[in-house]
Amino acid sequence: MTSPTGTNLRVLLANRPSAEPRVEDFELSEAPIPGPRDNEVLVRTIYLSIDPYMRGRIRATKSYTAPVAIGAVMVGGIVGEVLESKSERFKAGDIVEGRLGWQQYAVAQPKDLRIVYPELAPITTALGILGMPGQTAYFGLLEVGRPRSGETVVVSAASGAVGGVVGQIARLKGCRAIGIVGSAAKREYALSELGYEAVIDRTIDDVGAELSATCPDGVDVYFDNVGGHILDVVLEHINLHARIAICGMISEYNLPTPELAVRPTRTLLTRRARMQGLLVSDYADRADEALQQLGGWVRSGALKYREDIIEGLEHAPAALIRVLRGENFGKQLVRVGADPT
Amino acid sequence: MTSPTGTNLRVLLANRPSAEPRVEDFELSEAPIPGPRDNEVLVRTIYLSIDPYMRGRIRATKSYTAPVAIGAVMVGGIVGEVLESKSERFKAGDIVEGRLGWQQYAVAQPKDLRIVYPELAPITTALGILGMPGQTAYFGLLEVGRPRSGETVVVSAASGAVGGVVGQIARLKGCRAIGIVGSAAKREYALSELGYEAVIDRTIDDVGAELSATCPDGVDVYFDNVGGHILDVVLEHINLHARIAICGMISEYNLPTPELAVRPTRTLLTRRARMQGLLVSDYADRADEALQQLGGWVRSGALKYREDIIEGLEHAPAALIRVLRGENFGKQLVRVGADPT
Repeated sequence: MTSPTGTNLRVLLANRPSAEPRVEDFELSEAPIPGPRDNEVLVRTIYLSIDPYMRGRIRATKSYTAPVAIGAVMVGGIVGEVLESKSERFKAGDIVEGRLGWQQYAVAQPKDLRIVYPELAPITTALGILGMPGQTAYFGLLEVGRPRSGETVVVSAASGAVGGVVGQIARLKGCRAIGIVGSAAKREYALSELGYEAVIDRTIDDVGAELSATCPDGVDVYFDNVGGHILDVVLEHINLHARIAICGMISEYNLPTPELAVRPTRTLLTRRARMQGLLVSDYADRADEALQQLGGWVRSGALKYREDIIEGLEHAPAALIRVLRGENFGKQLVRVGADPT
Repeated sequence: MTSPTGTNLRVLLANRPSAEPRVEDFELSEAPIPGPRDNEVLVRTIYLSIDPYMRGRIRATKSYTAPVAIGAVMVGGIVGEVLESKSERFKAGDIVEGRLGWQQYAVAQPKDLRIVYPELAPITTALGILGMPGQTAYFGLLEVGRPRSGETVVVSAASGAVGGVVGQIARLKGCRAIGIVGSAAKREYALSELGYEAVIDRTIDDVGAELSATCPDGVDVYFDNVGGHILDVVLEHINLHARIAICGMISEYNLPTPELAVRPTRTLLTRRARMQGLLVSDYADRADEALQQLGGWVRSGALKYREDIIEGLEHAPAALIRVLRGENFGKQLVRVGADPT
């Protein structure tokens, strides 16, 4: 197979938003489709993953790493098809996953790609339950949260790409899983499909009162995806030696300046609790373990997941905006190209 | 030896302070000297320990445990002499340590007393470097901070009963120890006696600038005794996978209402750092290990310490007030009775 002729539609960062991003903060741009050099691979994007962490990458300040430059292609994980390979490790037609950005085509180094086996699971799962979000849930809950059977695990954004997996693994490990979500539909889904014992809808419920009611023995593990006021409230309910896994703080990402709150340190001190930030890439050397375990659970039906797919790369900015608003329902993906034949 | 006749001077909690405690929040009271019943021991207090945690115990809300009741004897650790024993485990003349409170005499259960050997170290050390503060430093640094040789360890209240031990153990473990203190005299002492590589005087230095200068490779472990603004500033300097041991927050104890600050969670997340509260009693089953190790270091001269002794139980309230102001210099003790002959 040879490279296609035509153009490569890309989404560039046009402007750094100071609050909620707008569609105009991004720019559609066409470029020639690049050609692979020796030991490189040309990939056609099929699905682009949209994730909350992207908000941190378009901020002026460093989050995990340096921000995306103005005029550069937005960062993001994709699953795609190898169109042309000058590497022995890949061949045309292979399905791969990698952080190739918001664009239709990209040239990649073999080390930056991971092979995906469509016969084992739908290829979208490489961006969701078997990809970064699923592995974040796996390592974050098991290594940072360290739940023990019989303990109470509270999860925020409990029906999301990460939270939904956390709640299900918690239950598989013999814990009581209590979810916090942002809509009645998500609450219903989390209860009926994800196996939470109770789910709090933060948009209508008094979260503190509901935590008292649903966690009479207190909270042993809190897996936090939202930060902000919800974190403050959950902290009031933690047990001695509780573990708080800080995975995200989506409620704070769009704030122009950080919110002030009572420091959590007094609670951490009196409860001798642990609060720890996590990033899945710290566990990269154990990715195979997670993939084996998560893949087994997905194939057996023990783990369920839900996807929210928007059509067309040009809608990626809108997709990010809705993810940051919590308007997506399930793992947010953008379909950039046709599924492989 | 029989029980003395006479009265038992005690210090009671008279009132719950809402901000800085005043001497009038305590009340001197005389009571008969109690007599031990079967399996009990009568102890004469020689030294009373004054510690920052006591502020939390006179608050209306639960800190580690229920607060001291109004009209009750103030809690506190003491070292004293057994005057009369109806237990096989102790005999008159034994020196013991226990949490017997702010009073000249107390009856105790054997399980609540620990024997102290005056031939091994001065008996005051049972309340300091070989007691609760020293063991807090030992377990807090080694188990929560988990320093590795070559790392940078920052300690606040760095010349204090806990902090001074933390800095010295950090150095013994091959770390660079950087201290933060509250006076020029403490800075001088921490540099010349405790072996800190650099010491920041928070009363005159720009703490952030000094941290940048003295920790060019960032902070790997922060052992926090003071909380508040200093904690916020140190967090700006932590490294990837840093460990923050929350031991105390003396700068916040007297605040009528909690101070607001930017939540530390964003920093914990992007640095994948761990913040954990610690209490020495969680390591009670390993007290012998700490005592052996600390005792060896004290006898070899590897660990130094300093004491600040006030005469007379009636001055215990004033001693607590000065500890909370950071006006003491070294482990604060109150001499309640004569040293053993």
